[in-house]
Amino acid sequence: MTYELYYWPGIQGRGEFIRLALEEAGARYVDVAVLPRAKGGGVPAILEVLEARNIQRPPFAPPILKAGARFIAQTPNILLYLGGRLRLAPADEAGKLWTHQLQLTILDFYLEIFHTHHPLGDGYAYEEQKAAAKRRTKDFLAVRMPKFLGYFERVLELNGARGPWMVGARLSYVDLSTAQVIAGLRYAFPAASRRALRNRPRLRALHDVVFDRPRIARYVASGRRLAFNNEDLFRHYPELDR
Amino acid sequence: MTYELYYWPGIQGRGEFIRLALEEAGARYVDVAVLPRAKGGGVPAILEVLEARNIQRPPFAPPILKAGARFIAQTPNILLYLGGRLRLAPADEAGKLWTHQLQLTILDFYLEIFHTHHPLGDGYAYEEQKAAAKRRTKDFLAVRMPKFLGYFERVLELNGARGPWMVGARLSYVDLSTAQVIAGLRYAFPAASRRALRNRPRLRALHDVVFDRPRIARYVASGRRLAFNNEDLFRHYPELDR
Repeated sequence: MTYELYYWPGIQGRGEFIRLALEEAGARYVDVAVLPRAKGGGVPAILEVLEARNIQRPPFAPPILKAGARFIAQTPNILLYLGGRLRLAPADEAGKLWTHQLQLTILDFYLEIFHTHHPLGDGYAYEEQKAAAKRRTKDFLAVRMPKFLGYFERVLELNGARGPWMVGARLSYVDLSTAQVIAGLRYAFPAASRRALRNRPRLRALHDVVFDRPRIARYVASGRRLAFNNEDLFRHYPELDR
Repeated sequence: MTYELYYWPGIQGRGEFIRLALEEAGARYVDVAVLPRAKGGGVPAILEVLEARNIQRPPFAPPILKAGARFIAQTPNILLYLGGRLRLAPADEAGKLWTHQLQLTILDFYLEIFHTHHPLGDGYAYEEQKAAAKRRTKDFLAVRMPKFLGYFERVLELNGARGPWMVGARLSYVDLSTAQVIAGLRYAFPAASRRALRNRPRLRALHDVVFDRPRIARYVASGRRLAFNNEDLFRHYPELDR
């Protein structure tokens, strides 16, 4: 089966968590909105799905994965689905739920990262909420980021299996997502994240081993992985990186 | 099996989504932190779990469900687990994922509701972020709330099965959570939510049918369901309800 991914073109965003899973597994997929409009791509392709009147189980927002006739949405839910099919999660129920639990904690983390630059939400431009962003970021860097990083470092430490992974002895989608968040943090907060990761050797190693995976490295080298930019989930505003 | 729920005492919070599922199913559970400290309850019972060094798969934050020897965390993940066991979700994989997808959209919704009064996060008291809260709430009430409510009303409309439910012909945990969010919105924004729900007859009916369920009604009447209050996820600040 060839999957279809629907996600806003021009940014990595939440879509990147799905792309990394598809790439690592070598799955066939079309990144629909990245296609030219003349070939059925672009933003209109996404709006068509969101506004379709004939989808009985409609998605609320991208990312959306079309698998056969089904449209599956919500990043952790898509990964839950793909985890089983692409062997990116344990097969036993307890392992599956634990992997998913970690992914939901990653979701909490990257939502808080998004809120550092958009505490008042998407309804206002960054420039309209700069003062609020500064206050929110102060608390994030001092309290929240160390708490999340400390937690994930501990999860790596507690995993009794050999290897650098979060769950058991094999790579799972949550490793890919964690590495992606670390890459994003380094882009957004180069100074603060360097300090925060100094005592987290396992997280640094996880990032490296993920981006060294042959298929991930090929994906990055292909140019298909977009660069981080300031329209995205992770944004670099030097004034926020103290 | 008797489940154990660990959630901050004194508020409904995210724990209430779990409680409603356990109550509707008539499951046996102990609401651990609600017990007196002398009986092993209170906040220390939660901290003990969060700080335990012998839990190999540690939770990041409450709510936490102890099921046998396992600790399961993250609200949607706990409901995913309970959905299968308590017959609060379809048994087929597609139905299971769809129910979960809706629950994750409910999560997006109640996170945005939390952010109306705490756009800068937990690190500051409401009084320290009142101006930011007013701006965020303005966008929430004008744009986001109608978008979410419109979506869920459409999901109800598109469900071809008989009955008032979100998924198929039986109640699922997402019905309980949706009803809870509507109750919370009515507490937080009595005026704005009344206007917004005027054209959403299916959502209003879903709220009523959930809180009329015999076990849910007994739970509410028992006094065990805490009242909404301004330490909670849903808060009523008249100045935000324009």
